[in-house]
Amino acid sequence: MIRFTNDYGEGCHPSILQAMTATNTEGNPGYGMDEHAEHARTLIRQAIGRPDADVHFLVGGTQTNTTAIAAFLRPFEAVISAESGHICVHETGAIEASGHKCIACPAVDGKLTPQAVQAACNAHSTEHMVRPRMVYISQTTEIGTFYTLAELEALRQVCDQNGLYLYLDGARLGCGLAAGDAELEDLGRLCDAFYIGGTKNGALFGEALVILNPVLKPDFRYHIKQRGGMLAKGWLLGIQFEQLFQNGLYLALASHANALALELKAGLTALGVPFLCDSETNQQFPILPDEVVKALESKFGFEVNCKPDPEHTCIRLVTSWATPEENVLALLAALKKLL
Amino acid sequence: MIRFTNDYGEGCHPSILQAMTATNTEGNPGYGMDEHAEHARTLIRQAIGRPDADVHFLVGGTQTNTTAIAAFLRPFEAVISAESGHICVHETGAIEASGHKCIACPAVDGKLTPQAVQAACNAHSTEHMVRPRMVYISQTTEIGTFYTLAELEALRQVCDQNGLYLYLDGARLGCGLAAGDAELEDLGRLCDAFYIGGTKNGALFGEALVILNPVLKPDFRYHIKQRGGMLAKGWLLGIQFEQLFQNGLYLALASHANALALELKAGLTALGVPFLCDSETNQQFPILPDEVVKALESKFGFEVNCKPDPEHTCIRLVTSWATPEENVLALLAALKKLL
Amino acid sequence: MIRFTNDYGEGCHPSILQAMTATNTEGNPGYGMDEHAEHARTLIRQAIGRPDADVHFLVGGTQTNTTAIAAFLRPFEAVISAESGHICVHETGAIEASGHKCIACPAVDGKLTPQAVQAACNAHSTEHMVRPRMVYISQTTEIGTFYTLAELEALRQVCDQNGLYLYLDGARLGCGLAAGDAELEDLGRLCDAFYIGGTKNGALFGEALVILNPVLKPDFRYHIKQRGGMLAKGWLLGIQFEQLFQNGLYLALASHANALALELKAGLTALGVPFLCDSETNQQFPILPDEVVKALESKFGFEVNCKPDPEHTCIRLVTSWATPEENVLALLAALKKLL
Amino acid sequence: MIRFTNDYGEGCHPSILQAMTATNTEGNPGYGMDEHAEHARTLIRQAIGRPDADVHFLVGGTQTNTTAIAAFLRPFEAVISAESGHICVHETGAIEASGHKCIACPAVDGKLTPQAVQAACNAHSTEHMVRPRMVYISQTTEIGTFYTLAELEALRQVCDQNGLYLYLDGARLGCGLAAGDAELEDLGRLCDAFYIGGTKNGALFGEALVILNPVLKPDFRYHIKQRGGMLAKGWLLGIQFEQLFQNGLYLALASHANALALELKAGLTALGVPFLCDSETNQQFPILPDEVVKALESKFGFEVNCKPDPEHTCIRLVTSWATPEENVLALLAALKKLL
Repeated sequence: MIRFTNDYGEGCHPSILQAMTATNTEGNPGYGMDEHAEHARTLIRQAIGRPDADVHFLVGGTQTNTTAIAAFLRPFEAVISAESGHICVHETGAIEASGHKCIACPAVDGKLTPQAVQAACNAHSTEHMVRPRMVYISQTTEIGTFYTLAELEALRQVCDQNGLYLYLDGARLGCGLAAGDAELEDLGRLCDAFYIGGTKNGALFGEALVILNPVLKPDFRYHIKQRGGMLAKGWLLGIQFEQLFQNGLYLALASHANALALELKAGLTALGVPFLCDSETNQQFPILPDEVVKALESKFGFEVNCKPDPEHTCIRLVTSWATPEENVLALLAALKKLL
Repeated sequence: MIRFTNDYGEGCHPSILQAMTATNTEGNPGYGMDEHAEHARTLIRQAIGRPDADVHFLVGGTQTNTTAIAAFLRPFEAVISAESGHICVHETGAIEASGHKCIACPAVDGKLTPQAVQAACNAHSTEHMVRPRMVYISQTTEIGTFYTLAELEALRQVCDQNGLYLYLDGARLGCGLAAGDAELEDLGRLCDAFYIGGTKNGALFGEALVILNPVLKPDFRYHIKQRGGMLAKGWLLGIQFEQLFQNGLYLALASHANALALELKAGLTALGVPFLCDSETNQQFPILPDEVVKALESKFGFEVNCKPDPEHTCIRLVTSWATPEENVLALLAALKKLL
Repeated sequence: MIRFTNDYGEGCHPSILQAMTATNTEGNPGYGMDEHAEHARTLIRQAIGRPDADVHFLVGGTQTNTTAIAAFLRPFEAVISAESGHICVHETGAIEASGHKCIACPAVDGKLTPQAVQAACNAHSTEHMVRPRMVYISQTTEIGTFYTLAELEALRQVCDQNGLYLYLDGARLGCGLAAGDAELEDLGRLCDAFYIGGTKNGALFGEALVILNPVLKPDFRYHIKQRGGMLAKGWLLGIQFEQLFQNGLYLALASHANALALELKAGLTALGVPFLCDSETNQQFPILPDEVVKALESKFGFEVNCKPDPEHTCIRLVTSWATPEENVLALLAALKKLL
Repeated sequence: MIRFTNDYGEGCHPSILQAMTATNTEGNPGYGMDEHAEHARTLIRQAIGRPDADVHFLVGGTQTNTTAIAAFLRPFEAVISAESGHICVHETGAIEASGHKCIACPAVDGKLTPQAVQAACNAHSTEHMVRPRMVYISQTTEIGTFYTLAELEALRQVCDQNGLYLYLDGARLGCGLAAGDAELEDLGRLCDAFYIGGTKNGALFGEALVILNPVLKPDFRYHIKQRGGMLAKGWLLGIQFEQLFQNGLYLALASHANALALELKAGLTALGVPFLCDSETNQQFPILPDEVVKALESKFGFEVNCKPDPEHTCIRLVTSWATPEENVLALLAALKKLL
């Protein structure tokens, strides 16, 4: 089985397991109060150009989103998201379970627009409704598109005009950075908080939450602990981000994933295959005849996205830091025969 | 000022204050364990034809909705509602504050359709998403329309097919009963739970929650108490529903409100005024030229609903059990001059 | 049956029902934005000597405590209470249901001490524990005792030293004011927030929450709405507190209750009956032989408090604004025969 | 620095990192739906003698406790715990944040007694109070003691008599199994649910939650996801428990930790050092003169537990699967010179 199923099907970049093995018996303080975590925090602060940032390491994405959003909002405040946003759809109501409403807005190319944000604010005017207080976006989006720098700046502006925090979910931030023009320093300048995803970009597990707005910083470790997110052996997270943020590894791994996805896209396009959307990152959504999809299933792993019409299926193909080019070539070869 | 602002601007039907005064020094057990409450429960069970129903009295609508929904759902379960539903928009996120997601669906004439319910169920398939478990509707809807008996039966069917509870918010149930073909006995047969609204139909305050599905009955008083809804002097609620459910008062009060609304509607239609929707109950939504709306404001009370175009405003006119016919005539007379 | 069961067994002072009847068809704005509520707020601000206070009217005590505490605390913050405190024992975990821990401390004569507060603070030192942030007390306590002015000042001091809010539950505040040396103005000076109980002192229902600390004021109406506590016909609460805070009615009603309780206490003491504690307010806890308690039950209503030894029972006798002196005399006469 | 600080200061048993390295590029399904997790579940079912058990892998202890307790209880239900219990004190109110009260009971030798459980049940009798529904214990306790088989059976009996679930927190279950007479099969027979701790017994991270009561099994994966505990690369947990439950590794690692702790205890006893309690597991609590504690600090790592008197300090010494015997000998040698 050749897997294009997701970007978390393999373990981690070998250097990380090597570092874990090398430090296994060091003996470190618990709960992220160790030197590896501190070193990784320093590397991340440098990368985003914000020496004042608070950086916290958590294990997974849903955990990071819920902990951050629940910590940042007061009980009656709500978060605005694209209706396809991960917090709206794929976190089993974790945000609501923490007491907060997700205001779902229509998206354009998977992306939230300033217009939609403003409309949501306008529609919530009295104490009989929740108060919008945060904008949630993800880079890249659920369909592989990314926000340009200009788009992020426009969102920052609408946030400023309405007293909203801007929070960015970076589960696939590496691919967003590698493909787009918004860099880590831009996020450090434009977001109130965001996280740098490790799980889907070469770490065994782990996300680095960056808090920039000083209002949101105090007591955050209490929230992590209360929500069950404080890893006893916190240095394991430190070691992984030490590796990812040395020698450009984080960006290199994402660039590999994107490059193979573009190779796939080019090959499919050459075969006349249409796409659900124009993605330049590691998730591609080709639309194929049902019988082709069926034929692929025995040799290739992928998820079905939707049924655009009764005879076609849109599938999701995902590449990762670990995908070998031969997998891409094998899929293109198989499709050449089938189409 | 002649008020068409809402249906909770006056106190209560005089018989209720008389009964409260007559029983003021009786000395009653607390928390709804008194004979008035028990008598009122019996009257309601008779009216809905379900001697097995559990009936609980609560003070207000948001409190009733939240207590019921939070009691009936497990943490990961969600409620399906029209996107204009009261729980979706006008309860300051009370449902989410209790931990549950409201799945907002498009409505037709303010009403949730079986198709929309089925689509919501189809879209939620795995443990990465919430599980739809309840359908929330209100009778009448936020725009004064009502579900016919056939529509309620169709919703019951889609609920049965998907393992969903059917819950009906009856804040304005009196007007729905008076206007439509679905009777209290139908609700007793079709719903898992529903509430009979008192606040907006002649009571000082109070709603009667009826639980029919035996799975939902146990321990409900714990939920009422935990959510702050257990009135110390619970007999005050009993006394009010004793009055409302004797001698046909409940339906009579609603019929009065509806009749005046229809008189208003007929008069406005005769003047050529269009409406946002075709309501046969106590809320009417005429669309008027902006300058007419402005001119009305000095003598009449009402809420603005929306701006259908730059030169017109849709206003909400509400009649109640307490509205005198002269108010309707005064408004029609004023409009005759203005239009 | 002569009832000493509780202080919420009768309706309300007649002047309140008269005022409700007189204003029944006035037509008032909803949700507490009316002139009666505003007038009542002014009267209360005057009574506590704090024109800057925010005053909100809610229906019941558990609702008021939960709404206030949940609004004032951040998710990881906790409230310190006597282990016998109403929020600790008799609110079905409402505080915990809002997400916050009650830190239960041993009480002296039903009262929380500064020493216990300091010990609780000392025991909670890191992010692996909740952070104490509020002290909850009630005036009077669950066993009828009250905090003296000096005791309240000492609690204020320990709060200041530890960064804690001081919140006072005034379900029976009238009796506390009538019996003790701490006056409303003292509460206005010493508390961050407190509530003035109406339900147990002559109102049909209703509590007046007073917020003094400006940090706690913003957006409080959102919390009331979200927790289902915003009464549609809010003026009903305004009307009641208008009556209670005119012509000294609030204090007069409580003084009546206390006076009868002291008459009961004196009579019982003369009969040689011991008490669980030395209460000077409207709750008395005499300890009687089991057979005497049994004999009383057929003619008198009361609750059993505890079994201090196998042959004796401690019962709770409660007087109220509505208790006639003849009830007290009847009970004393009955006991004279039985003892 | 020679560390006796805790049992989570080193990484993991070398076989685990080797297995992770060997499987790093396998390509596995996500979220615990892989063959390693399934194999580990089978091994655990065999070890507890319950082929019908549901087994779920989570990352950490607070996460496991909160997810399980919040999933198993209805909103008004509470959990009974020793007042020193981890959920009562050291989880930043995570249980309360999920909406549930912890009823704290006095402990004997760190252990909850059937008498205390029965007293808690007796004290909670109406809907004005929470309902006790679960007993929480940990094996070993916070002070290193353990429940004997007879004690567990007595707790099971009091649970049965009161309709309570029995839940066991096995963060240090290995040490409890190695020291006591209650075996895994006994837990499989006596508990409704319990977890087998990996983090503190040789795993990098991870706990195996075992659910035995069929009432508690349905939909548990929804709860894991909603609470942010569903690890994307779930096979990492499977691989670890595969190693721990093959060839007796789990028990062997705990036996090593216990043996060194007993060697420490014997050496300290020979030096005349008293202990806070009689622990036979990997946590020892000697009481030393303050100046001795001070002198130790430069070379040895440990936590201070309490100050039993002004001149003495009780410290916590923890051994683990990774502690070399030379560390124990070094500490004893140092103490010999100081005492």
